[in-house]
Amino acid sequence: MSKWKDLEQRLARTEQQLRLFQRISRLMASEATLQHVLNSIVRLIQEFTVCDSCLVYLLEGKELVLCASNDAPEHTLGRVRLSLNEGLTGWVARERRLLAISQDAYSDPRFKTFSELESDTFEAFLSAPVMARSKVVGVINVQHRETHAYTGDEMELLTTVGEQVGCLLLLARMDKAMIERAVSLESVLAGTVAAARG
Amino acid sequence: MSKWKDLEQRLARTEQQLRLFQRISRLMASEATLQHVLNSIVRLIQEFTVCDSCLVYLLEGKELVLCASNDAPEHTLGRVRLSLNEGLTGWVARERRLLAISQDAYSDPRFKTFSELESDTFEAFLSAPVMARSKVVGVINVQHRETHAYTGDEMELLTTVGEQVGCLLLLARMDKAMIERAVSLESVLAGTVAAARG
Repeated sequence: MSKWKDLEQRLARTEQQLRLFQRISRLMASEATLQHVLNSIVRLIQEFTVCDSCLVYLLEGKELVLCASNDAPEHTLGRVRLSLNEGLTGWVARERRLLAISQDAYSDPRFKTFSELESDTFEAFLSAPVMARSKVVGVINVQHRETHAYTGDEMELLTTVGEQVGCLLLLARMDKAMIERAVSLESVLAGTVAAARG
Repeated sequence: MSKWKDLEQRLARTEQQLRLFQRISRLMASEATLQHVLNSIVRLIQEFTVCDSCLVYLLEGKELVLCASNDAPEHTLGRVRLSLNEGLTGWVARERRLLAISQDAYSDPRFKTFSELESDTFEAFLSAPVMARSKVVGVINVQHRETHAYTGDEMELLTTVGEQVGCLLLLARMDKAMIERAVSLESVLAGTVAAARG
């Protein structure tokens, strides 16, 4: 490939990443429901990584619950549950680390199959923790049917999206009254400024 | 400028923007205080726009209160207050719109001076609302001493940062107990999934 074409492609790719974050940011500032935002994020990640499967698990008590996906059957949402000791996904949540496997993901000793998810037979697996306030509150997985060497861009993207989803989750769990109060609250801000000046 | 140089510069600029969002995202997922994050964001914006002044105002009741800045004297933080009817900043909050003025900002009929802020004499002014849950909860201003034609990149960046700061403000206003509950809450998530499937 010519150096010019290469540079053009890098620019296009970087611009695509930037647009993705801008779109997620717009969703974060909106009043959209968590489920709507998660579905949109899955679509954006799918477009960017051209993956066959994208799954978002969120922590509910001590279990990771499948909450959004581009390809999992509707009835598996809220139904597929993993303990933190199970599967590659559980490993990512436990270790708080990104995991990238370019082939034979299903042969990994940490792998766990679900008869309901087709992605159990996929070769490549990229997974990042969903983080909020330095805690793991979920996991996002990207999977490719064929072998796929994940790029630094893809890894960085999923890491950042994991952080955005974490903030969204916290915001979604604030009830309406709580948000009204936060938006117009006087005391906390005064406290913040005082602390900064003290 | 050669086309090659131009392309290289566009790539460098886009990568810089992307890194800025990644850094803000990392701050959002951390346990840093609102004041620490605001100070970091002011520094990042200052680097990106090479502005002379960056000011973050947050809504407290019906007033916009100066909360972070790279150049305002320490004692003005929490002290400089604007009603929503005052100044270019008030206009941005009221209209919920980005405002870009490349020169003579101080001659704008909407302008208001503060004897305490040097930036009152600056030529160029870029301002975006801080948004959370579709509500204005503050304003971020960038100012240049000399005339400066703001680029689409700079406008888009400030818009996105305004959205990020809005989320951060909401999160900062959740107290610790509230966050603990949100991070481990079971019922809301179940409700979300049920709603998506219903």
